[in-house]
Parts: sequence; structure tokens; C-alpha cells
Amino acid sequence: MKTFDVTRPDERLRPLLMDKIDNLTKPKGSLGRLEELALQVGLVQQSLTPVLRCPQNVLFAADHGIAEEGVSRSPREVTWQQLLNFLDGGAGINFLCRQHGFRLKLVDAGVDHDLPYERGIIDMKVRRGSRNFVHGPALTEEEYDLCLERGAEVVRQCAAEGSNVLSFGEMGIGNTSPSSVWMHLFTGLPLEQCIGAGSGLDPSGIRHKHEVLRRALDNYRGDGSTADLVRHFGGLEMVMAVGAMLQAAELKMLILVDGFIMTSCMLVASRLCPEVLPYAVFAHCGDEAGHRLLLDYLQARPLLHLGLRLGEGTGAVCAYPLVDSAVRMLNEMDSFAHAEITKYF
Amino acid sequence: MKTFDVTRPDERLRPLLMDKIDNLTKPKGSLGRLEELALQVGLVQQSLTPVLRCPQNVLFAADHGIAEEGVSRSPREVTWQQLLNFLDGGAGINFLCRQHGFRLKLVDAGVDHDLPYERGIIDMKVRRGSRNFVHGPALTEEEYDLCLERGAEVVRQCAAEGSNVLSFGEMGIGNTSPSSVWMHLFTGLPLEQCIGAGSGLDPSGIRHKHEVLRRALDNYRGDGSTADLVRHFGGLEMVMAVGAMLQAAELKMLILVDGFIMTSCMLVASRLCPEVLPYAVFAHCGDEAGHRLLLDYLQARPLLHLGLRLGEGTGAVCAYPLVDSAVRMLNEMDSFAHAEITKYF
Repeated sequence: MKTFDVTRPDERLRPLLMDKIDNLTKPKGSLGRLEELALQVGLVQQSLTPVLRCPQNVLFAADHGIAEEGVSRSPREVTWQQLLNFLDGGAGINFLCRQHGFRLKLVDAGVDHDLPYERGIIDMKVRRGSRNFVHGPALTEEEYDLCLERGAEVVRQCAAEGSNVLSFGEMGIGNTSPSSVWMHLFTGLPLEQCIGAGSGLDPSGIRHKHEVLRRALDNYRGDGSTADLVRHFGGLEMVMAVGAMLQAAELKMLILVDGFIMTSCMLVASRLCPEVLPYAVFAHCGDEAGHRLLLDYLQARPLLHLGLRLGEGTGAVCAYPLVDSAVRMLNEMDSFAHAEITKYF
Repeated sequence: MKTFDVTRPDERLRPLLMDKIDNLTKPKGSLGRLEELALQVGLVQQSLTPVLRCPQNVLFAADHGIAEEGVSRSPREVTWQQLLNFLDGGAGINFLCRQHGFRLKLVDAGVDHDLPYERGIIDMKVRRGSRNFVHGPALTEEEYDLCLERGAEVVRQCAAEGSNVLSFGEMGIGNTSPSSVWMHLFTGLPLEQCIGAGSGLDPSGIRHKHEVLRRALDNYRGDGSTADLVRHFGGLEMVMAVGAMLQAAELKMLILVDGFIMTSCMLVASRLCPEVLPYAVFAHCGDEAGHRLLLDYLQARPLLHLGLRLGEGTGAVCAYPLVDSAVRMLNEMDSFAHAEITKYF
């Protein structure tokens, strides 16, 4: 079974980083969250002069058996159609990647379609869509392990290309459903608080989604272990993202966490390996109902509150300039002593 | 007396803009605030394909007579010392301008120091610091008019250089005090709710600041007109920023509004000319106590909530990538029809 060796950043650098930040030419604390981010990145990289290298957004895509139950307004074919749109450069994630200098890696984790890998989509397909978890496990043990391993493999490739900061995104019609179930199972919050409108359900659609997921939970007969719950109610792209996050933390990379689905993945990653959290930058609080509650549960303070709910990694990439600002603050701002300015408050 | 001819953007383009935004390849509304921003910029520029050109941050600096009353922990000399730090490139606003491609204009509105104009600081000095408004008007009518005119002149220069988006910042030890008084006078909120810690007062310092400002208000014997209140309790850099904002709106430029002080200036600008508001993008909600209340009063929904309280334009420049994202969304995202994707939700 795939395991990860994630260790927390060494805390001994913290006082030196704090001292450096406090002596930059600004009232102490006046750059707010940028100062906290600078501290986090400095600790992750174990450096007073951290550098962000070759940011990439890795987008995992898959289809979901649960979508058969009518839990999404969007048809299944949108998953592969959007992947082609990503290839053509016309989607939300594309202009954001261009704007912020991100490379975009498209990973087929389990799309129910024959995709043009020759055009650059990475073939990590484990199967053509997960099974419908109302009737049994979405993934077998072997598929679960394969997802973790393949997600990790993509991240090792990014590291080999020189990246030390990654964001993760997803495309998969139906994937707010497994995310809601994971959230319910691993936070203990009532199922109804974990369910939202997805990409556009009305109140009766949300009630139906709740009934379907309730039924799926009632039908569960597994051993209740974390791994068993994750694979039973999982999605292929989601488990692959969990593996990717854990591998990124093992390699001491900074992880930008996108919306509701990726936050659910980080929740699961932190269940498997609590040491992953210091590597996570929670990029934004989206519009999906459970996202705010899930972030609160993780004691995460997201950088942006823009009502985004597109997925794809869009919120994570949107927040990147703030991480860049934090790093530039550390590297480019002058100190009071050097600038010959009276220290002010 | 200086007047401005500001007109609201023509609303006839709104339905076309909405239609374009709603047909981009994403669930309707799923890019949240970016969609609202795109609509605003499109209306301001009267274009379905708006363009942001040559962004500049104009930083107005001045000293304040009210600082004699001990309302700030920082000594007066910090105003000119920081201006030199801006010239040397080592301050907060510098790395942000470099990061986001902003030109930085430094304007001496009334600093109590001989500054090296040959190094590029723009000499608009009206006098060496405003008067202490506990004892009488901070500015004469002539000085007030001169400030409005000179602020406008700097903006016309920016327009001549090709800019259509500007942010405004300030440096002036003591300038949260006039900002608090303006806020109190023009929102009607109790004075104590308009006063905060500035760059680092403790609770007894805040009480002292309240007493000083209360006394100044009690001593006021003017005619109660907007212009009279603004000049009586004004700051040179602040009135200059008001003139700059109104000129920018007259020229149909987008205005990025920074922190508490610049938001107070936008409040005053909107008192003089309510039509200025559709040109304003409220960039962030800072850490100064009154800022949130003032934004609420203006029904403004700031883009960022990062606990910034540095001024200089830092919050406004920090938010610029989001405005850029909104514009790129309009120009670079594909439509459902063109991309041959099933319209999804």
C-alpha cells in the first residue's frame, strides 16, 4: 500500500523569519496576511530568502458513477468536452495560468472518453469513471492505491521540472457529491451542512442529492477505516489529488488549495498524514455551501473571498500573486536600519 | 472654484456585457466577483473587450498640523524619510508596483521638508504641512482649491501617458485623524466608531486621539458646507487625492481605492460628485477600525480582506491582478457555442 513520508517544516527558523519581517520598512504587522504567508513560505523552504519556481496547476479529471443518480444538472459529456476546451486554451483556468505564468498539466485520472493524449493530456486513467457508490465501493483497493501512486508520480515529474509550488484543480461532473460525503465523514458535521448546489442545483435538486447521499451512507458495509471510507465514496481524480498533495508535502513544495473539492481532498490528505497541513495555502473560500464550514473545521484562513465556484484550480491560481507578493516582501523590502528611517509604528 | 464634470457610464451596454459573460465556458456566475468586475470595467470603458493600459500608482504625501497633538506614535520626519525610501525602491509599495507593472508617481502635496525633486518626486507642494485643525482651518480656501487642481493635473498627466487605470496612495504621518473626522462628518457615524489605532496606538492613545478630534470638532465655527468641512479638517495630500479621483472619473478611468484614508477621500469625492462611484473599485478592507464601517456605508464590497494597513496604495496595487483577471476573462475565455461544449450549470 502506498505510504508517504511527510514531515513538518523545522520550526527553528521561525524567530529569525519573524525578526526579518518585523524590521522591514513598514509598521509592524501592517502587511497583514502577506506577513503570515511570508513566514509560512520561509518555513516550508527553510529560507529567509525563499523563491517560487515554475508554478504549475495540475488538473485531475474523471467521471463519477454517482452522477447516474441525477445529483448534477450537467451531463457527463461536459467532463471530456471541458478537457478539450482546456487544451484549446479557452477555459477559465487557461487565462489565469497565462496571466500568472503557470504551466497547466491536464491529467486523465478516469474520464469516460477516449482522449487525445498525443495533444498533451497525461494518461493516468485508472478506469472509465468511478462506480456508483450507492450500490457499493466507488473504487477497489487496487484502484485506490493506483490513484495515490499516479498522483504522486505526476508531482515527482513537476519536481523534476523544477517546480516548488503547485496548485491542484479538478474537472469531473458530479464530484461535489463525493466531496460532501468525505466532508461529512471526516468532520462529523451533519450531511445536510456538507451539501450545496454544486454547479447549479435548485432547492429540490439539493434535497434529491441529500437523499441519494444519505442512502449511499446507509448502504455502506465497509470496515470504517479512513482508507476504506475514502475509496468507497471517492472519485478517481480526487484520490489522485490526495496522492499528489501528500507527495508535494513530502517533497516540501508549497500547495495551493483550490475550492470545495480540493479542500475536501486536503481534508482527506490530512487524515492520512496530518503533517501535510503546514504546506497548504488555502487560496479562497468559494460559493459552495460547505466550503466555508470545511475551511473553518481545518482552521484555515483562505486568502480570497470572491464567490468563485468554478474549480479547475481557478481560485488557487487567482491567489498566487499574493504568495508572490509575500515572497517579494521578504526579498525586496529594505530594513529600517539599512534605509536609515526612524522605526515607526 | 475648481469643479469637475463627472458623468455616470452609459448603462445601455449592460445587457450585452451580461450576455457575453453568461455565455463563457463556465457555469453561470461561477467566477463570482470577477464577473461583477468585468461588468464594471466594461461599462466604464464602454466596451465588450476592455483593455487596461499603463497602470500607475499615484502617491500623495504631506505632513499634518494635527500631529502636534500627539495623535500618532510616529514622528513627523517619517513622512519625508519614507518618500526617499520610495525613491530608493525599498518600501512596500515598490515591490508591489514592480510585481504588477505599475509606474509609481510620488507627489509632494505638502511635506515639511526640502525634497530632491530632481530625482523624480513631483513638486505640487501647497505648503509645508497643513495647519493644526484644533485651532482653526487646516487649509485656506485657496489652498483647498490648489490641492484639487494639482491632484487633477497629475491625473491629466497620467492620461497623457496613456493610462486608463490608476490607484492612489498616501504617506503622511497623522493622516488617519483627518480621515476619521471626514468619515464622522460625512457618514454621521459616531466619532468613536471612526477612530482606530492608526499605525499603532494603544487604547489610551486612541482615547487621547478621540479627545483631540472631539475638541477640534467642538471648536469648528465654519459654515458647515461640504467644501468648508473638507478644507477645515483636511490634509493636503488627501484633498489632492480627492481632486485626482474626480479628474480620473471625468476622464472615465478606473480608480483603485486603497485603505482607510483613500476610502475617506472617495467618500468626500462622492459628496462633491456622486457620479464618481461607478469608477471606483474598492480594493481591500484593511485593519483600521473604521475602514469596514466606511466601506459598508458606501455599499462597497472590497476585493481583498488581508488585514493590510500600510497605505501607500499597497492594498490597491495588490488587488490589481483581480481586475486584470476580470478583463482577461472577457477577452480570452471562449463561448459555449464556439467551443462546442454542452452548456452546463
